[in-house]
Amino acid sequence: MAKVAINPFRPVYPTPAALITSVAADGKPNIVTLGEVFNLSLRTPPVVGIAIRKATYSHGLLMECGEYVVNMPTVKLMTAVDGCGSVSGREVDKFARFGLTPVPASRVKPPLIAECPVNIECRIIGTEEIGDHDLFKGEVVAAHADAELLDGGGRVCADRLDPLCFLYNLGCKGEYWSLGRKLGSAWAAKKK
Amino acid sequence: MAKVAINPFRPVYPTPAALITSVAADGKPNIVTLGEVFNLSLRTPPVVGIAIRKATYSHGLLMECGEYVVNMPTVKLMTAVDGCGSVSGREVDKFARFGLTPVPASRVKPPLIAECPVNIECRIIGTEEIGDHDLFKGEVVAAHADAELLDGGGRVCADRLDPLCFLYNLGCKGEYWSLGRKLGSAWAAKKK
Repeated sequence: MAKVAINPFRPVYPTPAALITSVAADGKPNIVTLGEVFNLSLRTPPVVGIAIRKATYSHGLLMECGEYVVNMPTVKLMTAVDGCGSVSGREVDKFARFGLTPVPASRVKPPLIAECPVNIECRIIGTEEIGDHDLFKGEVVAAHADAELLDGGGRVCADRLDPLCFLYNLGCKGEYWSLGRKLGSAWAAKKK
Repeated sequence: MAKVAINPFRPVYPTPAALITSVAADGKPNIVTLGEVFNLSLRTPPVVGIAIRKATYSHGLLMECGEYVVNMPTVKLMTAVDGCGSVSGREVDKFARFGLTPVPASRVKPPLIAECPVNIECRIIGTEEIGDHDLFKGEVVAAHADAELLDGGGRVCADRLDPLCFLYNLGCKGEYWSLGRKLGSAWAAKKK
C-alpha cells in the first residue's frame, strides 16, 4: 500500500463527544461541547482529562470553580451538542436554549445534565498548557448512569449507551457519527 | 430519569484503539496496543498523547528512544490488535506473530505498521505521572495515510477509515466496536 503524507491536524479518531458543565461564582451553570475527553488514569484514581482553549468562557469558570462534570451525550442529543459548541455561555443560557435540564450533582458544584445517560463528577487536580490547549486533569469523585442502562447485575449495558462519536481530522471538516456494532471482547487471546 | 451511582472506572467512551510502535537500542521494534489515544493539542503544534503503565516493556523503550508512532487500526485488524495487547514484547516478536509489517518512518526511528491506514510519527516533548499511568506527550512530526483513502482533492474520506473503537467502562469487560454511520456535520448551528 502506498503511503502519502497528510496534514497532521488532530490525527486520532474517532473520539467521544462530551458536554462539560461548569458553574460561575454567582451559581449560573454553563455547558461547553468538546469533541473528545480522555481516560488519563483508570483506577487509582480514575482521572478524566479535558483540553480547553484559554479564550473560552468555560476555561475561566473551570479555573475559578475547580470542578466540572463530564456528561456523555447520545445520538439523539446531536443538535443540542452541536448548538452548545456553536455559541458562548457569555451571551446565552445554553440549558434554556437547547432544552437541557440541570440536576444537582452529589459531590461537586456544577450540575449534571439530566438528558445525558452517564455523568462523571470531577475535581481538578492539575492543569497544564500543551500547545494550543490547556489540559485539565479531573479526579473522578462520583459517577452516575440512568437506571435503565443497567442490567440485572447493576452493570451498564454498552449496547444501550448509543454514544455520539466525533471525527475531525485529516481534512474532514468535523462530523458526528454513531457507534456501530460489537465485534468482539478484548483480551480474547489471553483467555485461550 | 432516575440516576444511579456507578463504578467510576474508565468512564468515558468509546475511544480510538491504536497500535503504538517503539524501538529498542538494538533496533528491534515493538508494538503495544492501547485502548485510546488523545489529541491533546490540535494545531500549534499537533500533540498526540498516550497513557502507558510503567511496568510495560514499551514504557522503557519509549523513555530510551524518545519517539513513537501511533498506528490507527481498522476493524479487519481486530485479532492482531487484541493479540498485541495480550503478550509482552519482552518475549514475542509481535510483528512476526501477528502478521504485521514494519515500514521505515520518515522522521523517527520506530517503524510504521503497513497494515494500518493512518500512521502518526511523534517525538516525545514531555512525560508525566497521572495516577496509575504515565502520560507521554508526542509532538506530531509527520503523518501518513494510505493513498486509497484520499479523495480527488487529497483529503482523507472518513467513510473509508473503518476504525476500531474500544469500549471498556462501567462494568463492561472490554469490547471492540465498529463505527456506525455519519449523522451530520459539526458547527451546523454556526452556519445557519
